[in-house]
Amino acid sequence: MRAEFAELKRRLGEVHDLAKIQELLFWDQTVMMPPAGAAVRAEQLTTIDRIAHERFVDDEVGRLLEALRPYEESLDYDSDDASLVRVARRDWGKARRVPPELSAELTKAASEGNEAWVQARADDDYASFRPWLDRNLELKRRYIDCFDPTDEPYDVLLDDFEPGMKTAEVREVFDRLKPGLVSLIGEVASDEEDAFMRGPWDEERQRDFALSVIERWGFERESWRMDPTVHPFEASAGTRDIRLTTRSSPDDITSLFTALHECGHGLYERGVSPSLERTPLCSGCSSTLHESQSRMWENIVGRGRPFWEFFYPRLQGQFPEVLAAVELEDFYRAVNRVRPSYIRVDADEATYSLHIILRFELEQELIAGRLSTADLPEAWNARFEEYLGIPVPNNRVGVLQDVHWSGGGFGYFPTYALGNVVSVQIWERLREDLPDVDDQIAAGEFGPFGEWLRTHLYALGRKFTPRETLERVVGTGIDPEPYLRYLERKFGALATA
Amino acid sequence: MRAEFAELKRRLGEVHDLAKIQELLFWDQTVMMPPAGAAVRAEQLTTIDRIAHERFVDDEVGRLLEALRPYEESLDYDSDDASLVRVARRDWGKARRVPPELSAELTKAASEGNEAWVQARADDDYASFRPWLDRNLELKRRYIDCFDPTDEPYDVLLDDFEPGMKTAEVREVFDRLKPGLVSLIGEVASDEEDAFMRGPWDEERQRDFALSVIERWGFERESWRMDPTVHPFEASAGTRDIRLTTRSSPDDITSLFTALHECGHGLYERGVSPSLERTPLCSGCSSTLHESQSRMWENIVGRGRPFWEFFYPRLQGQFPEVLAAVELEDFYRAVNRVRPSYIRVDADEATYSLHIILRFELEQELIAGRLSTADLPEAWNARFEEYLGIPVPNNRVGVLQDVHWSGGGFGYFPTYALGNVVSVQIWERLREDLPDVDDQIAAGEFGPFGEWLRTHLYALGRKFTPRETLERVVGTGIDPEPYLRYLERKFGALATA
Repeated sequence: MRAEFAELKRRLGEVHDLAKIQELLFWDQTVMMPPAGAAVRAEQLTTIDRIAHERFVDDEVGRLLEALRPYEESLDYDSDDASLVRVARRDWGKARRVPPELSAELTKAASEGNEAWVQARADDDYASFRPWLDRNLELKRRYIDCFDPTDEPYDVLLDDFEPGMKTAEVREVFDRLKPGLVSLIGEVASDEEDAFMRGPWDEERQRDFALSVIERWGFERESWRMDPTVHPFEASAGTRDIRLTTRSSPDDITSLFTALHECGHGLYERGVSPSLERTPLCSGCSSTLHESQSRMWENIVGRGRPFWEFFYPRLQGQFPEVLAAVELEDFYRAVNRVRPSYIRVDADEATYSLHIILRFELEQELIAGRLSTADLPEAWNARFEEYLGIPVPNNRVGVLQDVHWSGGGFGYFPTYALGNVVSVQIWERLREDLPDVDDQIAAGEFGPFGEWLRTHLYALGRKFTPRETLERVVGTGIDPEPYLRYLERKFGALATA
Repeated sequence: MRAEFAELKRRLGEVHDLAKIQELLFWDQTVMMPPAGAAVRAEQLTTIDRIAHERFVDDEVGRLLEALRPYEESLDYDSDDASLVRVARRDWGKARRVPPELSAELTKAASEGNEAWVQARADDDYASFRPWLDRNLELKRRYIDCFDPTDEPYDVLLDDFEPGMKTAEVREVFDRLKPGLVSLIGEVASDEEDAFMRGPWDEERQRDFALSVIERWGFERESWRMDPTVHPFEASAGTRDIRLTTRSSPDDITSLFTALHECGHGLYERGVSPSLERTPLCSGCSSTLHESQSRMWENIVGRGRPFWEFFYPRLQGQFPEVLAAVELEDFYRAVNRVRPSYIRVDADEATYSLHIILRFELEQELIAGRLSTADLPEAWNARFEEYLGIPVPNNRVGVLQDVHWSGGGFGYFPTYALGNVVSVQIWERLREDLPDVDDQIAAGEFGPFGEWLRTHLYALGRKFTPRETLERVVGTGIDPEPYLRYLERKFGALATA
């Protein structure tokens, strides 16, 4: 049994190595690679993806997983070893369901769809993108057919990002969020402009400031790096090899929050227990939980008043020519303006989730075939105006804005809004244990806060399902009320102050 | 047959992808990776190396290579397809000779030996390194025993870097070089110092200048990048993804030549025929031919008078505070000083090959067991003084200076000096076709020169053996006379001017 477990771990370690290499190749391609390297890089990624898949779905892995049932049952459910067998069995079962030909078609359609989308968005030409969207949808329906029937076909797609979560649960959360957010925004949205927010913000000094913040949060030079890119993301090749990417612009200080957001993702990956290194459990638990951390560090911490009580004098010191005459309260208010806008990734904390709810609804209808891609722009525009109160002027800032659908990424969007919801649940639970966390943050002290998150959440990695993980951290399932209360309290106070 | 060839090519393409990914991971580790990522990276490299090896030595590859003999024989020897089968058969035969256990032992001993060497060099403590050197030598003897007996055991090691070349041939070349170089250095070595060479040389402007040179040589922003590192090297993930590394220091302009050297390697890789992309033929032919190109661009071109006729006014423009009052001739002389010194990588063009000949002689004696590692430092020091005329003060600048032996890299050193020899053979042949190449270079025109090299050498990749390749380029085998004549002419003129 010991030998069989060692052999399983060896095989899974190898597959995990390949997955991490893929992640690094993607980082390199996006951040470092000379652009003409793209064609060969695509082949290299295909090769490594195919080998990783072949090695994982190997019959022998299945045999080992079966043989190890008695060993797994002899162990504590929470132990690393039992979790490894349990999670690997679930992953293996899913991976075996999808024929390699369909995987290859999905990959190819994603890559071609992505190219078509880049052009279509540049040209504001939805019609040219529509055939690729149809193709991706058709392949996704075939993908869904690989699995046992579920309550709703969308469940299968959601499961890839949020294992075990049902569409109906998400709908319940969003049905509660939607009216709450629409009404809140009606009350607190503002058209005020803050001239000082246009800078100029020297980009080198922006970077220095961002680094000074995230080094206090846990970015250690020996385990992290941060580089500029166009569409920021976080990647990691190991728990001690974290790559943040960010962007900056001399007329926009709010891209600072991008660095804080990606740092949140990085802190999660960095905090996974070293005992899980080189196993499939070595990553954040799910998209929602990952996003809960990027959002917590970006918004709850990074756009909070205690944070700026400590850092604002430092920011003023970096940019005296812009901020010398600007009070902390005015700056705090400026980085927390609520104003409906078209682009999801630029949306403020209060409007963001409505962008997601819109996409979640449309995705379900597209997958179910209740909405044709021919009618999609119209449906988008009508619903956008209904939820956010502003008319969409063109498809570039409307239905064509996001990359996800071009690559077949259906089922991912909801996790962004669920991340907001969960971030506040975790934040409230954490404050029970650390009642003076606001004072600590206002004193620039992030040690106990980060340590609480590491111990209660990050260290667990992917040992448990998202539901199990959330229950271990906060004691309950997903619940939108704390998030709504948080927004009402924060933005209500700002609106009436 | 077509199907079998396609299958062979698919399999070899996959193995080549993995090899290129390894090269990129090495680049990343050296140039980009946060240092704490090293432990996991080592595992990832081991995984990908093992998978690449397993896939290459697969029985099915051997079966395809045999089945394709008639197809190979039906084709022109020089065709891409015949060359692919021929070279892959040779590589496969060699790879199958070495048991995986021995490969693993070699890799492990190399990694541990490297760590021991870093410490031993820092402490100037040869005794602590000696057991690792013995271990590497013992494993190398076992490696040699995997192959059919050759004239000399060292032939097997040489073959890994210079396929088909015999130790006796190298000895013949070096036996001619050694007295010629010793006598030349006696005549032209100089102790003169040039105060202006100490700068200060602003590193950003050094980089700008180096880029302005190598962009003229063929460095295109869409296919290349250049980054700083401690021990510079060139890596490529594809013919359109070339990574140069270089170093700089504010008190030393000669590190500019490092960039030119690595650019020479990069131009070779960039010039391999696109028809060979993603095949085992897609790389420079051998260590010697590769080094012939780095040396040609660095020394024959980059330390030549025509080059500086064009670029010196530009360098003066970049560094007026250092060079305004320095004549071209004085600068040209300064970058061509001959002065025996201890460190191989800092050696000038005339003394460099003697450092290599010393190592080649000692390597053969160590492998044959005629020299014990206990007596190695003494042998090194005695011979160093004999060849270069200066006594070695300690092992740090003596026998411990190079990384190669710590990782079991025996058989590589001679290719550095052979590269010097071959570079002048190619240069002389090229001048027959381009008689006014000096004038072109003096006019900053590198197009016809680069194109000649691309067509005659680079495009061939690894299709032919080094001997076949050299014969195709210059019409003869390896010959030290042109190199000696070149050195005598260049440095003789400098000494008597």
